[in-house]
Amino acid sequence: MRLAIDAMGGDHAPEEIVKGAMEAIEAIENVHITLVGDEDKIKPFLTNSKNIDIIHTTDMITAEDEPVRAVRRKKNASLVLMAKEVKEGRAEACISAGNTGALMSAGLFVVGRIPGIDRPALSPTLPTIDGKGFLMLDVGANVDAKPNHLLQYAIMGSIYTEKVRGIHNPTVGLLNVGTEDGKGNELTKKAFDQLTEAPINFIGNVEARDLLEGVADVVVADGFTGNVALKTIEGTAYAMFTMIKETFLSSLKTKIAAAMVKSDLKGLKNKLDYSEYGGAGLFGLAAPVIKAHGSSNSRAIYNAIKQACHMVDYQVTDKIKETVEEINKEGNE
Amino acid sequence: MRLAIDAMGGDHAPEEIVKGAMEAIEAIENVHITLVGDEDKIKPFLTNSKNIDIIHTTDMITAEDEPVRAVRRKKNASLVLMAKEVKEGRAEACISAGNTGALMSAGLFVVGRIPGIDRPALSPTLPTIDGKGFLMLDVGANVDAKPNHLLQYAIMGSIYTEKVRGIHNPTVGLLNVGTEDGKGNELTKKAFDQLTEAPINFIGNVEARDLLEGVADVVVADGFTGNVALKTIEGTAYAMFTMIKETFLSSLKTKIAAAMVKSDLKGLKNKLDYSEYGGAGLFGLAAPVIKAHGSSNSRAIYNAIKQACHMVDYQVTDKIKETVEEINKEGNE
Repeated sequence: MRLAIDAMGGDHAPEEIVKGAMEAIEAIENVHITLVGDEDKIKPFLTNSKNIDIIHTTDMITAEDEPVRAVRRKKNASLVLMAKEVKEGRAEACISAGNTGALMSAGLFVVGRIPGIDRPALSPTLPTIDGKGFLMLDVGANVDAKPNHLLQYAIMGSIYTEKVRGIHNPTVGLLNVGTEDGKGNELTKKAFDQLTEAPINFIGNVEARDLLEGVADVVVADGFTGNVALKTIEGTAYAMFTMIKETFLSSLKTKIAAAMVKSDLKGLKNKLDYSEYGGAGLFGLAAPVIKAHGSSNSRAIYNAIKQACHMVDYQVTDKIKETVEEINKEGNE
Repeated sequence: MRLAIDAMGGDHAPEEIVKGAMEAIEAIENVHITLVGDEDKIKPFLTNSKNIDIIHTTDMITAEDEPVRAVRRKKNASLVLMAKEVKEGRAEACISAGNTGALMSAGLFVVGRIPGIDRPALSPTLPTIDGKGFLMLDVGANVDAKPNHLLQYAIMGSIYTEKVRGIHNPTVGLLNVGTEDGKGNELTKKAFDQLTEAPINFIGNVEARDLLEGVADVVVADGFTGNVALKTIEGTAYAMFTMIKETFLSSLKTKIAAAMVKSDLKGLKNKLDYSEYGGAGLFGLAAPVIKAHGSSNSRAIYNAIKQACHMVDYQVTDKIKETVEEINKEGNE
């Protein structure tokens, strides 16, 4: 198993990226990692040289770069060279914690799509109260989705959840403004009909208020709505932690109480922590491409590497390709 | 000032509705309230008979009724008769905590629209960390919005926030997937251009993650996206309270700590409590129509009555009408 990793992407690059890669090489059998980035900055964090090599480049894409233009012009940026490793068959999957838009562009223009998939979908696993988590897609790769795209997201999400997350016959819900059939805007009404016919365990419309309760294993939305839902979860959780902190610091009594529950509340924060769930897959590309969170620490990178390995091992890409081919064949019959 | 109130709508009707009305009559000068509903069920909660009368009907629309059909067929339902009071000039505004869809239908078909406003918008005030709150519209009256609708929401939201909430030159943000200009889907890109030209304090795109930080006084979205954002806030806050509660009940130590901060955490819950902010206005109708939360207690009803009075006093409807006329005149020149 050969993976390419953008060592320069993310808030804590290259240190946490390289450390995560070293952990993975220790823990996962038969994994070979190619780190792409500035050799001088990577080397201090290398703890062994087995199963790891470096493609040296000093060029990189920053968070401020305009994604499409950056991928086209910065041909030697670490993120672009990483994607090229996959494109040219020297790696089976790739991971970056860098500029999300640039990774989507590199995925689309360098790695390429699975035939029959119109648009890739950015697909993170989000926390639920029971700790099981759910997959939401798309959260922003394609902000003007058609009903057919949502159908493809549902199929890709189902396959991933069954194969990689090990959930048999995963439930799929359509994010909507009400749970009743017939609810929604033009897009979701049309998508609902297509999802009903699809070879998935479609449970109908789900509401945003039930997402963290684990209402479905896979939740499908257009990229605009999915992005708003994701960022609202993040923002609300952050606001509540801020207010809880303020409450605990408001008096001597509350400070004493805070000290008593500190470790327990930290457990709660960990429950909401993305890094345990790996990164967000860019589903629909010709090979697994994983977007790790920008603030990824070595643990998050390690989990993203495990996730990429699972996607390769369980041949998620091939399975998506076959399923889409079958559906398109049926549609043409 | 004459208001009509649906005494039978909401989870705690008629008791909490009637009690809220009685509080308002005590506290607010020159307010006359017409309660519409079952006289036998209303009367036990009447504490005086000054400035209050009852329109008796036993018919009502339930949460399960299909909105448009219910409004058309149940001509004597309390919600419909309430709207008729406004339509026929016997009340200047109306309030219901009942079926949201039915209230929107009654607003549209009985009360009617302001000329020049294409679609009414459901417009709640949501809490922020600093306690100031912000207005979000639309949260579901119109799930397939056009750019022009978003422009009208922005104008209505600005006028309401300036007049009723007393915020001078309120900031208006467009809910989007990024803060940079040029971000978004087809709808928000086009709406952005129209908002830039509008006679409002438009601050550009805002992200869902910053809503509770109070990033703008007015946040504009299509009804589908706004509904998802609203319900995601509710769901995430609920999930976090559930998890905090579980954390506090997990051991003797945490239970002791919980007892120490109980009242403080209750303050936090109150901070997130809608009822302090009144109900959600249905902006764009020919008179103020307020949707109180389904779980409204008397306090929430009292605040919704105050809100309706302010909307009438500050002539929000007339001001919206004038502003829209001016813009349409300019557009035709």
